[in-house]
Amino acid sequence: MERIIIDMDEVIADPMGAMVTWYEENHPQKVNFDNIKEGSWVRGFPEQHRQLVLDKLHGPGFFRDLPVMEDAVDVLKEMNTRYEIFIVSAAVEFPNSLKEKHDWLLEYFPYFTWRQLVLCGDKRMISGDYMIDDHLKNLVHFKGKQLLYTAFHNREVEGYTRLNNWKEAADLFLK
Amino acid sequence: MERIIIDMDEVIADPMGAMVTWYEENHPQKVNFDNIKEGSWVRGFPEQHRQLVLDKLHGPGFFRDLPVMEDAVDVLKEMNTRYEIFIVSAAVEFPNSLKEKHDWLLEYFPYFTWRQLVLCGDKRMISGDYMIDDHLKNLVHFKGKQLLYTAFHNREVEGYTRLNNWKEAADLFLK
Repeated sequence: MERIIIDMDEVIADPMGAMVTWYEENHPQKVNFDNIKEGSWVRGFPEQHRQLVLDKLHGPGFFRDLPVMEDAVDVLKEMNTRYEIFIVSAAVEFPNSLKEKHDWLLEYFPYFTWRQLVLCGDKRMISGDYMIDDHLKNLVHFKGKQLLYTAFHNREVEGYTRLNNWKEAADLFLK
Repeated sequence: MERIIIDMDEVIADPMGAMVTWYEENHPQKVNFDNIKEGSWVRGFPEQHRQLVLDKLHGPGFFRDLPVMEDAVDVLKEMNTRYEIFIVSAAVEFPNSLKEKHDWLLEYFPYFTWRQLVLCGDKRMISGDYMIDDHLKNLVHFKGKQLLYTAFHNREVEGYTRLNNWKEAADLFLK
């Protein structure tokens, strides 16, 4: 069975979307998507509020209720029967998020088990046949097939095979 | 730089020792070390109290204050300058322990960073040059050199290169 390594944030969960919604409901300013470059979507928020955004990201509760990326639940349910799937999140930077990410995954993707979750700081020791991730820093160390999941911060990156959404993942892995 | 994957429980931390101490301080019965076979040291505790032991293991606080294995702090401090070290713990089974393990590691081994911690359910996707672990179920999938760290539950296992303590690790990796 081929092994697929799948990132969590910006790939199956939508922290940027949740943060934008929360921010724009609570502030008159708007997020500037043009400022979001490779590395972090935090730069899209007005400079005077970036610390506020970081505090919310590191604080309790933020990762527990994130929206799920469209079609991820249905497509991964089928992929999970045909591939060895691991959900690998570089979450140790946010220690408050660790249990929340466990609880979130098992609530929204009940067909996964705790055995399929990996919470790490760095992904360079992770091996598999495919890696789906929105960050080049994770993909570059991976020896299997690298698949860049499209996110605002990586939209100018060239030279990678992309997955733009989970329907495209279904086309690649389930046909 | 060669990469060494190092387990946490029974290798750098001592949950069995902590549990035995707690149990024998609170109960007239003794732990029977002869009952501890490959798989789990929980079997060493009297049958009528195994659920109690499991509840303590899964509950809050247990992993935050574990004793450190002898010489691990000093030997790993030097190894950390010569090798790429990752501490990999199959801890996702115990979601309450995830943040505790992060906090414990960075307190007792302050030269490690959050980037070096991996919390997973299963270790089969972890790659490196060496793996030091007390469980065969983790070592068998590993493609690098497998090193069995001696623990009560694995003392009858044959056919593996053993590390019996951290002084032996220093002999192997630092000479």
